[in-house]
Amino acid sequence: MEKSAIPPVISIISKKRSGKTTFIVKLIPELKKRGYRVGTLKHDTHGFEIDHEGKDTYKHKQAGSETVVISSPWKISVIKDVSEELTVDEIIQNYFTDMDIVITEGYKNAGKPQIEIFRSSAHTSLIYRKGEQHPLIAVASDTKLDMDVPVYDINDIRGMADLIEKSFFSR
Amino acid sequence: MEKSAIPPVISIISKKRSGKTTFIVKLIPELKKRGYRVGTLKHDTHGFEIDHEGKDTYKHKQAGSETVVISSPWKISVIKDVSEELTVDEIIQNYFTDMDIVITEGYKNAGKPQIEIFRSSAHTSLIYRKGEQHPLIAVASDTKLDMDVPVYDINDIRGMADLIEKSFFSR
Repeated sequence: MEKSAIPPVISIISKKRSGKTTFIVKLIPELKKRGYRVGTLKHDTHGFEIDHEGKDTYKHKQAGSETVVISSPWKISVIKDVSEELTVDEIIQNYFTDMDIVITEGYKNAGKPQIEIFRSSAHTSLIYRKGEQHPLIAVASDTKLDMDVPVYDINDIRGMADLIEKSFFSR
Repeated sequence: MEKSAIPPVISIISKKRSGKTTFIVKLIPELKKRGYRVGTLKHDTHGFEIDHEGKDTYKHKQAGSETVVISSPWKISVIKDVSEELTVDEIIQNYFTDMDIVITEGYKNAGKPQIEIFRSSAHTSLIYRKGEQHPLIAVASDTKLDMDVPVYDINDIRGMADLIEKSFFSR
């Protein structure tokens, strides 16, 4: 935990099955290569399972521990019940102040700058329309689009990283 | 995150395979029944694996995300790289301030009050000796012992919870 500042947040959003995760796992190493400490935040709305049955931490949780932490010299992990969903800002404040940038998967309604992923093979239209008010800074698409923000080829990860750098880290 | 205080910490320690986890998973519901919010912290010294291969969060981590968080309306989970192992006090401060009590599994050298679990079927002697300086507040044992702290039957979870309440929450 080296510094305590609020890092910029960029949300990767799309309609279902448009490849948000695929895009993010390419973007992470590109940003890391440029020297940034990258954290990621996934939005889950239907309940996730983490940890493995039979592990001690799993047994703690099953027994009713409301916050289970496992700590090693290399990694720490936390599984915590919440009584209501935390906002992105609360999560950033609690867990990401030592990162340089946070990429969220989902969180369309969190009010952070967004990149929409569009795959013409999966959908016929984007979430947001040209001209409409939107929080997009760019679109990553597998086809040419007429939008009022820059449209990048879905595989142009370097171009997208350039845009993110320019948007959040330009001096 | 309802309050922001440092909860008391009790460390459950023992020689290997003496049933720390078994003891803890019985103690958690007993303390919860009494109205306490219970968190647990497991010390891992040889590297743990959490999360499931193929999950999006797993892919984020593999791609190099240094802090991966998944958040739902019910639960939040964090997997975070650390450059050096966090102390128990740092971990409590970061993740447990909304708990009433934290039970650690291990952390013999963290300087917190300890309960030693002793199973005569697994070992012939305790970690600590009578008369020697030690941080024990009690021992839980499957056999009678002559110690300078109270010795509880290993199955007397209510008795142990009474002692913990008296030690940390007496008014």
